Amino acid sequence: MGYRDFVLKGDIAYSIAKDALCTSENSFLVCIDGKSAGVFSLVPAQYGQLPLIDYTGKLIIPGLVDLHLHAPQFSFRALGMDLELLDWLKVHAFPEEAKYQDTAYALRAYTALVEDLKKGPNTHCCIFATVHVPATLLLMDLLEASGLVSLVGKVNMDRNSPDGLRETAGSIDATREWLDRCAEKKDKKNKNCGPILTPRFIPSCTDDLMRGLSELQKQYRLPLQSHLSENQREIAWVRELCPESSCYGDAYTRFDLFGAEVPTIMAHCVWPEGEEIELLRRRGVYVAHCPQSNSNLASGMAPIRRYLDAGIAVGLGSDIAGGTHTSIFRTMTEAIQVSKLRRFTGCDEAPLTREEAFYLGTLGGGSFFGQVGSFAAGYEFDALVMDDTSFAPPFALTIGDRLERAMYLSDDRHIIAKYVRGSAIQ
Amino acid sequence: MGYRDFVLKGDIAYSIAKDALCTSENSFLVCIDGKSAGVFSLVPAQYGQLPLIDYTGKLIIPGLVDLHLHAPQFSFRALGMDLELLDWLKVHAFPEEAKYQDTAYALRAYTALVEDLKKGPNTHCCIFATVHVPATLLLMDLLEASGLVSLVGKVNMDRNSPDGLRETAGSIDATREWLDRCAEKKDKKNKNCGPILTPRFIPSCTDDLMRGLSELQKQYRLPLQSHLSENQREIAWVRELCPESSCYGDAYTRFDLFGAEVPTIMAHCVWPEGEEIELLRRRGVYVAHCPQSNSNLASGMAPIRRYLDAGIAVGLGSDIAGGTHTSIFRTMTEAIQVSKLRRFTGCDEAPLTREEAFYLGTLGGGSFFGQVGSFAAGYEFDALVMDDTSFAPPFALTIGDRLERAMYLSDDRHIIAKYVRGSAIQ
Repeated sequence: MGYRDFVLKGDIAYSIAKDALCTSENSFLVCIDGKSAGVFSLVPAQYGQLPLIDYTGKLIIPGLVDLHLHAPQFSFRALGMDLELLDWLKVHAFPEEAKYQDTAYALRAYTALVEDLKKGPNTHCCIFATVHVPATLLLMDLLEASGLVSLVGKVNMDRNSPDGLRETAGSIDATREWLDRCAEKKDKKNKNCGPILTPRFIPSCTDDLMRGLSELQKQYRLPLQSHLSENQREIAWVRELCPESSCYGDAYTRFDLFGAEVPTIMAHCVWPEGEEIELLRRRGVYVAHCPQSNSNLASGMAPIRRYLDAGIAVGLGSDIAGGTHTSIFRTMTEAIQVSKLRRFTGCDEAPLTREEAFYLGTLGGGSFFGQVGSFAAGYEFDALVMDDTSFAPPFALTIGDRLERAMYLSDDRHIIAKYVRGSAIQ
Repeated sequence: MGYRDFVLKGDIAYSIAKDALCTSENSFLVCIDGKSAGVFSLVPAQYGQLPLIDYTGKLIIPGLVDLHLHAPQFSFRALGMDLELLDWLKVHAFPEEAKYQDTAYALRAYTALVEDLKKGPNTHCCIFATVHVPATLLLMDLLEASGLVSLVGKVNMDRNSPDGLRETAGSIDATREWLDRCAEKKDKKNKNCGPILTPRFIPSCTDDLMRGLSELQKQYRLPLQSHLSENQREIAWVRELCPESSCYGDAYTRFDLFGAEVPTIMAHCVWPEGEEIELLRRRGVYVAHCPQSNSNLASGMAPIRRYLDAGIAVGLGSDIAGGTHTSIFRTMTEAIQVSKLRRFTGCDEAPLTREEAFYLGTLGGGSFFGQVGSFAAGYEFDALVMDDTSFAPPFALTIGDRLERAMYLSDDRHIIAKYVRGSAIQ
């Protein structure tokens, strides 16, 4: 559908705060020029002439936000989950990523990923590609064409990586070349997909590389994504590699690549040590909570309640292929589950509520992209229309209950329409 | 399809032991009179004239077995998971179950459940109904007609339960009436669905009721199902109610309602105390492991490795609606995940492998029903044919890998044929 100004009618829900869900039955959601003009119980007179799409009885919610996904790993999701992080990288992830040197392979694999993302409930994604510039640009073209909004990173890794995946002296030059190509595409009206700097993680990146990336960041004013404190052996390794750092987060901070002026996502944050929580908070770093991956790779159960209590920004990540499912609905329900199991490790924290999980997967992560993840006036019009009839119970439900049920039970069949920035995703 | 003798061709996998999966590519699975005659690389001459259904390239595996599901709770699955067991029962489960006094409501709700079970990967189920005899018989009729195999229990509860759900003196008489009706139906050729004695759990059942059920068990020679050691508050309550019992399991044993001569399933077994593990083992009691429910209700993480090491029989349970998903594939993957998280509680146990999880959900639980859950010659012919093309990766996979991926990624769309005792489920 080509209209950028229109009205949807249905049963509307969106987060207005971490623990507050706003719901409106049989209401009207107005889209003006790709942004929400608000939710109304009656169509305001000034919008009376707009096309009205009647989704009476259907759920209308913001699209979901995935703050952490490894595009080249989509091909082997739900395989090989018999190892923990460092061995898993070596045995499964690195060999698969090396294949993306072949752009024909990359096209095939990335096409499957983007098709999956289009059909699912996510509208925004932060994505790790590989070290390969051609494959990364190819992925970005596919994502641009999809209509979804994404930040994609050519990955940097120049140590502790296998041949075929380890960059040598040319990493910064290749990154610069990639960024210049991205800038050209932006001049030619690319608007959905942009670059994000992506040092894989401290063990993969020499100090020289980190310094070079820091200069690039200052020059190109880019956001940044990486990994933090996912697994105990990984943390111990970083401690060996960076004896002068007070904690893993400090190893990034030393290069000005950890929040503050640099919008930053750190994935996992399962085992914060010492001042790391304060560092995350003070520098405004986003935590991408990836519970499914943390379970599958036996990494642990992240202390999300502590992050929320500290006022740290938290979103959700599928972490394909540590995670198996791209749908952030699945990540929400696993975040709730894992928060309930944490008490058996001796932590006395309130579990996540359904409202909080929904917030994390929409407004929580969406705020990294800007005005994303809500239907408040001025926010990007990113919406899902869902038909939950097939799992309706034999009694009436509130919209909040219907949303809870959709989080657990829905799949792509139940998404009957999807909009990003006001345009329908086909 | 009406044939009882036929051959399926495809990529076949089934458990031959806890940690051993047998796979055969492009092979032939023979069904004679509703039982497997074995798996062959070439069709043996004596079967050469049988109808051959060519599922080349598709996965063929045994149907899955659910050892624990609350039929009346299907209606509110994926709702109200904000409470722990005892409060959750009071606030959500009991009020919903009381509605099944109304057989029109029961028909509506149970029809939805049975339709869901037919479409999914489970072929065998052990089911709790409610205290209501008419609704329970109605459920059994629906299940009989479905072609699935099930054991269904009219629930017994005569204390610590709300009005409308608490049986008074008539519990044993009502149970006897129900069992006599079941026997009549069996005489009239019911073969798929039979009764199982179902005291809800110790807190719900007075000693008199348990004694009465013990007599019924001896008279009718029935199997038994109940709950054991699911939640800490529940266990403490049982300790108060039964001060003379050495552990929760002993509270059942005192009435001869815990294994030995009585084929028994105990759901959960999350917190075994003292001699309980030895009691389970010695008396041959089946543990129904319900990881999804144990997470959702914050009950804990069951020590399944210890049960397996002790040689205890273990199967899987969806535990709808502590659990949200009927598919035992989902239970398998959550069993694996939870086994990986147990180490963070201080337990040093090997996580479940994919082979073990698949075993638990087929042969492990299937053995409660008899020769169920395998394609070895003589086993019931219960099979799923699955088309995993839509999530095939851009590289070749072993059958074991395809099965792992199907466990995590498949849904009912991928089940293209389903057989129970050699008959196709439509």
